[in-house]
Amino acid sequence: MIVTAVKMPRIRTEVQVMFFDTDCGGVVSNIAYLRFIEIARTLLAEELGLALAEMAETQKYPVVVHTEIDYRRGAKLGDRLVVEGWLDRLERVRFWCAFRILRPKDNVLIAECRQSLALIEMPAGTLLRLPESWEKYRDLEAKTQPDRRTA
Amino acid sequence: MIVTAVKMPRIRTEVQVMFFDTDCGGVVSNIAYLRFIEIARTLLAEELGLALAEMAETQKYPVVVHTEIDYRRGAKLGDRLVVEGWLDRLERVRFWCAFRILRPKDNVLIAECRQSLALIEMPAGTLLRLPESWEKYRDLEAKTQPDRRTA
Amino acid sequence: MIVTAVKMPRIRTEVQVMFFDTDCGGVVSNIAYLRFIEIARTLLAEELGLALAEMAETQKYPVVVHTEIDYRRGAKLGDRLVVEGWLDRLERVRFWCAFRILRPKDNVLIAECRQSLALIEMPAGTLLRLPESWEKYRDLEAKTQPDRRTA
Amino acid sequence: MIVTAVKMPRIRTEVQVMFFDTDCGGVVSNIAYLRFIEIARTLLAEELGLALAEMAETQKYPVVVHTEIDYRRGAKLGDRLVVEGWLDRLERVRFWCAFRILRPKDNVLIAECRQSLALIEMPAGTLLRLPESWEKYRDLEAKTQPDRRTA
Repeated sequence: MIVTAVKMPRIRTEVQVMFFDTDCGGVVSNIAYLRFIEIARTLLAEELGLALAEMAETQKYPVVVHTEIDYRRGAKLGDRLVVEGWLDRLERVRFWCAFRILRPKDNVLIAECRQSLALIEMPAGTLLRLPESWEKYRDLEAKTQPDRRTA
Repeated sequence: MIVTAVKMPRIRTEVQVMFFDTDCGGVVSNIAYLRFIEIARTLLAEELGLALAEMAETQKYPVVVHTEIDYRRGAKLGDRLVVEGWLDRLERVRFWCAFRILRPKDNVLIAECRQSLALIEMPAGTLLRLPESWEKYRDLEAKTQPDRRTA
Repeated sequence: MIVTAVKMPRIRTEVQVMFFDTDCGGVVSNIAYLRFIEIARTLLAEELGLALAEMAETQKYPVVVHTEIDYRRGAKLGDRLVVEGWLDRLERVRFWCAFRILRPKDNVLIAECRQSLALIEMPAGTLLRLPESWEKYRDLEAKTQPDRRTA
Repeated sequence: MIVTAVKMPRIRTEVQVMFFDTDCGGVVSNIAYLRFIEIARTLLAEELGLALAEMAETQKYPVVVHTEIDYRRGAKLGDRLVVEGWLDRLERVRFWCAFRILRPKDNVLIAECRQSLALIEMPAGTLLRLPESWEKYRDLEAKTQPDRRTA
């Protein structure tokens, strides 16, 4: 028997909090965390075969359809944060990514986020089907996260 | 019989899409809409008695605890958008605001958003109780939006 | 004798400092001022016959070639600032705009900025000649600001 | 004879162009380059003994007093850029940093920038003297860049 080694795509990256990420409340602005998540999402897209440089040429982009984010704790200037991102679920023309922002220094969860995306072709904005090469993730998802299907 | 004139605080403001709001996909960046919403939230906070200039002095700030946003249609460079915001629900120490971004030109709904916030005192980050002057909105909410209580 | 009523285009707009404009130093981030200036520059471009909505269609954009900015005083959360902008000088294919950011409340000069721009056509990035309708500003400039010609 | 190994502090870092760095002109927004430069400046400040995490605690920050930037070529989505930064000149209470943004792929110069900064203590905004440990860079500067002194 051959066991296929297909795994849900998952990435992990590091960011450091800059002045422009903070606001006068002394912590990172709620908006800046979404830049951190976009950095992670870009790396995740590359894992899925969607490279940034190609998108600029083909004009086929993933667009964010929905974002939900829970802010748990405030990160501060100079903090080194880890952003984890993974493919969470595939629908017919949309896919869900999930993200977690952590501060390893004191092992604190900073924020959790889920986003659904679609692939579109600009400038017309035509909705595209998800790539066939992603089909292998559908089964995997069913096996590993059955509890999410009914949510 | 006396009819009280208390109404849920509600604001409406206009923004125009600038270059820095767009990305190379040709439409407004998903992150930029949250700046539009922050502008509306600031005006709404003023309606609720929380003025920006005071916050800077008292160090008491509303912080975003949760955001959920649905992107319906992409706005473009130069578009004049209307952002509507209103107080949606009061919990014990959190309150919910809701927002809608519209493009009046062709009467299109661009995005819908809900955020929950808490009041904290910096730099300690102490959680504050909601102002007593807001109590009047609790009853109102119960009367006008009973369906949301069970959601 | 006929007195021509041509004046150098000049605009004035107001912005209020939002949370996302500030950083943890407690004042407006040096980068955020350039967003204020872009808002003013957009209004100035409209005065010059370059409307944002048209640019998105014609793909002819003004691009910033050079920026210089002096930060005089720090603005704070909630401050209402005035941004003044004017056409400063025309070269063959470049034009200079100048800006001043003021805080009327205490009559303080916050920042001064000059930018040179060129008109290009995307996606090729072709450099365009300045519009003929701008020629009338050349003479005007010579008359009103002779000292700048030798700088 | 002992040759001192003091060198002008100099750093080099890499950034990749994200969606949020671009605008609908199809290239990186003029404002986004200043975020790249702030990342480089932060690393340079660490070389000079000014770590971000400390600044947040001591409330002593470098503030930008002046920026000048020349935009040479437009970078695109997905481009990997190198930002070089170095200490350029020390004045009595100000210091100058210089930056260069390059695209190694085709060896293109994207932008050049100079900034002068001062050290201040917040919230009062008191101007601080430059650290004594920086005195060693004064002589060095005189030797290596005599032409800049008269500029």
